[in-house]
Amino acid sequence: MIRFECDYTEGAHERILKRLLETNDEQTGGYGVDEHCEKARAYIKKACGSENADVHFLVGGTQTNTTVISSILRPHQGAVAAVSGHIAVHETGAIEATGHKVLTLPSDDGKIRAEQVKELYDAHWNDAAPEHSVQPGMIYISQPTEYGTIYTKSELEALSQVCRECGLPLFIDGARLGYGLAADDSDMCLADIAKLCDVFYIGGTKVGALMGEAVVIINDALKKDFRYMIKQNGGLLAKGRMLGIQFETLFEDGLYFDISKHAIEMAMLLQTALTNQGIRFLYHSTTNQQFPILPDHTLEALGKKYTFSFWEKTDATHSAVRFCTSWATKKEHVEMLIQDIKALH
Amino acid sequence: MIRFECDYTEGAHERILKRLLETNDEQTGGYGVDEHCEKARAYIKKACGSENADVHFLVGGTQTNTTVISSILRPHQGAVAAVSGHIAVHETGAIEATGHKVLTLPSDDGKIRAEQVKELYDAHWNDAAPEHSVQPGMIYISQPTEYGTIYTKSELEALSQVCRECGLPLFIDGARLGYGLAADDSDMCLADIAKLCDVFYIGGTKVGALMGEAVVIINDALKKDFRYMIKQNGGLLAKGRMLGIQFETLFEDGLYFDISKHAIEMAMLLQTALTNQGIRFLYHSTTNQQFPILPDHTLEALGKKYTFSFWEKTDATHSAVRFCTSWATKKEHVEMLIQDIKALH
Amino acid sequence: MIRFECDYTEGAHERILKRLLETNDEQTGGYGVDEHCEKARAYIKKACGSENADVHFLVGGTQTNTTVISSILRPHQGAVAAVSGHIAVHETGAIEATGHKVLTLPSDDGKIRAEQVKELYDAHWNDAAPEHSVQPGMIYISQPTEYGTIYTKSELEALSQVCRECGLPLFIDGARLGYGLAADDSDMCLADIAKLCDVFYIGGTKVGALMGEAVVIINDALKKDFRYMIKQNGGLLAKGRMLGIQFETLFEDGLYFDISKHAIEMAMLLQTALTNQGIRFLYHSTTNQQFPILPDHTLEALGKKYTFSFWEKTDATHSAVRFCTSWATKKEHVEMLIQDIKALH
Amino acid sequence: MIRFECDYTEGAHERILKRLLETNDEQTGGYGVDEHCEKARAYIKKACGSENADVHFLVGGTQTNTTVISSILRPHQGAVAAVSGHIAVHETGAIEATGHKVLTLPSDDGKIRAEQVKELYDAHWNDAAPEHSVQPGMIYISQPTEYGTIYTKSELEALSQVCRECGLPLFIDGARLGYGLAADDSDMCLADIAKLCDVFYIGGTKVGALMGEAVVIINDALKKDFRYMIKQNGGLLAKGRMLGIQFETLFEDGLYFDISKHAIEMAMLLQTALTNQGIRFLYHSTTNQQFPILPDHTLEALGKKYTFSFWEKTDATHSAVRFCTSWATKKEHVEMLIQDIKALH
Repeated sequence: MIRFECDYTEGAHERILKRLLETNDEQTGGYGVDEHCEKARAYIKKACGSENADVHFLVGGTQTNTTVISSILRPHQGAVAAVSGHIAVHETGAIEATGHKVLTLPSDDGKIRAEQVKELYDAHWNDAAPEHSVQPGMIYISQPTEYGTIYTKSELEALSQVCRECGLPLFIDGARLGYGLAADDSDMCLADIAKLCDVFYIGGTKVGALMGEAVVIINDALKKDFRYMIKQNGGLLAKGRMLGIQFETLFEDGLYFDISKHAIEMAMLLQTALTNQGIRFLYHSTTNQQFPILPDHTLEALGKKYTFSFWEKTDATHSAVRFCTSWATKKEHVEMLIQDIKALH
Repeated sequence: MIRFECDYTEGAHERILKRLLETNDEQTGGYGVDEHCEKARAYIKKACGSENADVHFLVGGTQTNTTVISSILRPHQGAVAAVSGHIAVHETGAIEATGHKVLTLPSDDGKIRAEQVKELYDAHWNDAAPEHSVQPGMIYISQPTEYGTIYTKSELEALSQVCRECGLPLFIDGARLGYGLAADDSDMCLADIAKLCDVFYIGGTKVGALMGEAVVIINDALKKDFRYMIKQNGGLLAKGRMLGIQFETLFEDGLYFDISKHAIEMAMLLQTALTNQGIRFLYHSTTNQQFPILPDHTLEALGKKYTFSFWEKTDATHSAVRFCTSWATKKEHVEMLIQDIKALH
Repeated sequence: MIRFECDYTEGAHERILKRLLETNDEQTGGYGVDEHCEKARAYIKKACGSENADVHFLVGGTQTNTTVISSILRPHQGAVAAVSGHIAVHETGAIEATGHKVLTLPSDDGKIRAEQVKELYDAHWNDAAPEHSVQPGMIYISQPTEYGTIYTKSELEALSQVCRECGLPLFIDGARLGYGLAADDSDMCLADIAKLCDVFYIGGTKVGALMGEAVVIINDALKKDFRYMIKQNGGLLAKGRMLGIQFETLFEDGLYFDISKHAIEMAMLLQTALTNQGIRFLYHSTTNQQFPILPDHTLEALGKKYTFSFWEKTDATHSAVRFCTSWATKKEHVEMLIQDIKALH
Repeated sequence: MIRFECDYTEGAHERILKRLLETNDEQTGGYGVDEHCEKARAYIKKACGSENADVHFLVGGTQTNTTVISSILRPHQGAVAAVSGHIAVHETGAIEATGHKVLTLPSDDGKIRAEQVKELYDAHWNDAAPEHSVQPGMIYISQPTEYGTIYTKSELEALSQVCRECGLPLFIDGARLGYGLAADDSDMCLADIAKLCDVFYIGGTKVGALMGEAVVIINDALKKDFRYMIKQNGGLLAKGRMLGIQFETLFEDGLYFDISKHAIEMAMLLQTALTNQGIRFLYHSTTNQQFPILPDHTLEALGKKYTFSFWEKTDATHSAVRFCTSWATKKEHVEMLIQDIKALH
């Protein structure tokens, strides 16, 4: 089987494994205070143009979202997210397990708009008895979104401004951030992201690492005691260097951005070819997740050779599915897939 | 600096890294349902003599404890532990964060006794109004304990029997289980552990792996929906194979036990030499953590060359400290340490 | 001001106050194990036709919902409710604070249908990886609903059957249960309610009592250790007799049902008169909450003499508002209100 | 049976019931924003000499402790209390259910000392890796304590000063505050209490009310959004006026203090008489809880006529028990008890 079902089907970029091997006998202290972590932090802060940021390494996305959100909110506050946001749908209630409601906003494309946030905020505070409802306490967005779409700089600026006006910290889930930055229509760099939010994370698991997410805290008010929160949420890895070494490798000379670009090229190769075959897509994704709508009989046949994710039925005989590319995707696999779809279509 | 402060100062056993390299390009599904995880599960079940066990892989100890404990207890129940138990002391309230009190029992050696459990249980249920107190809901022990001591088979049998009489699931934290099994005075094998408890975990992080803990659920009643609990607690690693490959390597031919033995040999080398120098120890540890009591001036001098953990002041001029050995400890380092202590003493 | 904004604007039914006075000097034990509580329990069990039920007294609705729901669910499970359900909207995240997501189903009339529950259940369990989502763990409905509508017997039977097929406990929030039972179109008595659900509560706060809600647990599997849960949730009133005396008074000779009927008569008086004036209603409520749609200028004028709750704008010049009647509503007030609306309309 | 087992065996002070009756037909808004609540707030603020305080009314002690503590702490922080503190022992893990550990300090008399707090604080912050432990986040004390003892003004001043130096809010559980203020050896008034802590509550349940506790927030930093917290914790009573009317009655002309004095007189009558009979006490209590040590056969005989609480065995043939007086205790009952003990002794 050739796997396109997700972007974590292989191990890690070879340079990361090589580095793990080279450093294996080094003795370091635990819990993320070793030299490799320090170097990785320095590289990331530089890439963010934010020397004052705090950078922490955690293991996975759900853990990171839980740790950041529960660190920010008071008990009566909730995190506002798109109805399709990862925390609202696919984390088995991890946010609620920390005591907080996820307040959802409708969204067709995975994104939420500045005006939606303002309306929600006003609706809450104009209520005659707001204390009977969960208070919006922060905004959560994903870049790129769960639908592969990305916020433009002007969209993010508008959102950021509303958040600051309303006193709502803005948190960006960057599980696939590399792929968002590498998209052809991206008009932001890492420093733009850093400037426009209060805290975000740079996903490693889906972009070249074995595992690991780098949380970048920009807003000073959110920095206090964050290591306690990591520990309480099970994210303070004993061999923290493991995460440091990986991010050091990814950020010392731009590897993170290079391998992200490859995933985008593979995704666009697929998108263009399928579009040329007259196939439509469920979302207008410019990143590494592509959602073509295909006849069910085609999908059945494809399923014998490839893995992909069922997304939703679009009519009686068609379904939208998800194909993911990644830093590890082989061009010949994408080409083979294109040929096979063409043949079956 | 030569590091003895803990048992996670190096990377992973070379065979694990080699295997990660060999399998790196393989494509597998995510979240622990790949072939490597399956093989690792099979090896572990065999080693436990328990074909019906459920085996799950998580990332770290705090996460594992939180997931297991919150999976077992109802909201009004607490986990009973030694006052020195890891969950009572060094997890930043992670158990409480899931809503549960840790009910502590006094202990000098890190162990709790069957009679203590029975007394606590009786005291609760003989109270005229037990519903005003936290109900004991399960028993948590560590093997070996945080003080390096181990439960003997008869001690564990007694504890197990009381637990079963009282309807209290027994959970064994095996963060350093390998070192407990390899101790010279150990009279149990993995299958004994499995037989005498309801759920336990086999620590990988401190015994040869980059990271990872294998939860083994023996009691059928505790198996239901455990994967949901892992996900909610942030432990369902996207590249779950990472954990599978490591435990496959550790358990396919006994590597886990072999490297544990090495740590014990190194610890005994140190213990014997120091004892021969007339040095006393805070606890009678037969495992990889050793707690000698040394003059503060000796410790100050040692601290320039070695790292170790301060434990407690024992009198005005002496302190107990912790030296850890591990699968990775070099014999020449231990010998050098012995010589240096001798010279300074 | 004449108050119609809610159904808790007065104290308690005079017979309750009288009884509190008569019993004031009695000495009783605390926490709900006194004779008054015992009598109240017996009356309620009889009224429910369920001698085996467990009856507990709590103080308020949010507390009751939180206690019942957190007692039933495991951590990875959620409570399914209408999007308009009280627990989903107006409890400041109290359910989430116990760690559980509220899974909402769309609803126009405040009710959910058996088919919706079945679909949600199937969707969850047919997912390839259900453990990434919150598992539906129980069903929560309100009778009457937050919109004043009521479930018919056949609707509740259908819901009940699906719940039993799916293994989902059915919990009925009866904050206004008396008003639901007294509605002209009600085809159920208390015993029907008891037979068709697993646990429900009989609201006292809104139906004649100073405060208090009587939880009735029908399903044996949900009875265990419920008093611990009440205590943990702050509901085990020291002077528990306070609640016992009130429910004893309400249920010894049917007072609860009689005073509920009065509220319905007052509501129907209002509804009929307004309907005759050509006024439309937002929901077809047959209970004590009525939601007429009135011109904003009428509402502004009315607001100088009466209190009522703003509900929603229905067009540029009209709004729906809520008028509540209760056991305490004076007929002359309703007639005055009708006249004033007529005059203004 | 004549009941001395606790201080909540009767209903409420007659003036409170009278006032409930008088006001029963008044229509007021819900949730504690009515005129009675406003008046009660004004009286309490005046009695506290603190016009800027925020005063909120909740229903019971566990609920109040949970609401205050979870409002103050961040997730990784714990509440420090005496090992005998109510939150540490008798609230079924309610504090832990909000996610927080109770950090206990040893105590023989129910009190904690300023130096203990300082030591705990220093121990935490001097740890090389404090983030692995729960951070002390606030101090909880009871006045009077669970053992009937009271803090003197100088003790409270010392505690208060350490708390302010360490940035730890000081919360006083005043479930029996009236009895503490009325004690013969009390050298503080309500205003002293208010001046020396950050937040406290004035217990009504045990001092004349049907139920109810008045939280007084002195420290501005702790005032924000407290009503949300009350709602989330189930304490925002629909008929909030019920609490307002009671506290209005208790504080409009000093009734609270007068009836507290009565309980103390009754307690001293008992204490003096028993002391004169040569009976010793477990604790030196100057408040309404008295803990005499009596022969078991005496207790058995007494138990046929009186209720009291078993406290602990003191030797093979003696036990300490608790007798409580209250605002409602009849002098003839105390005298009869004294005579009966004399006769049996």
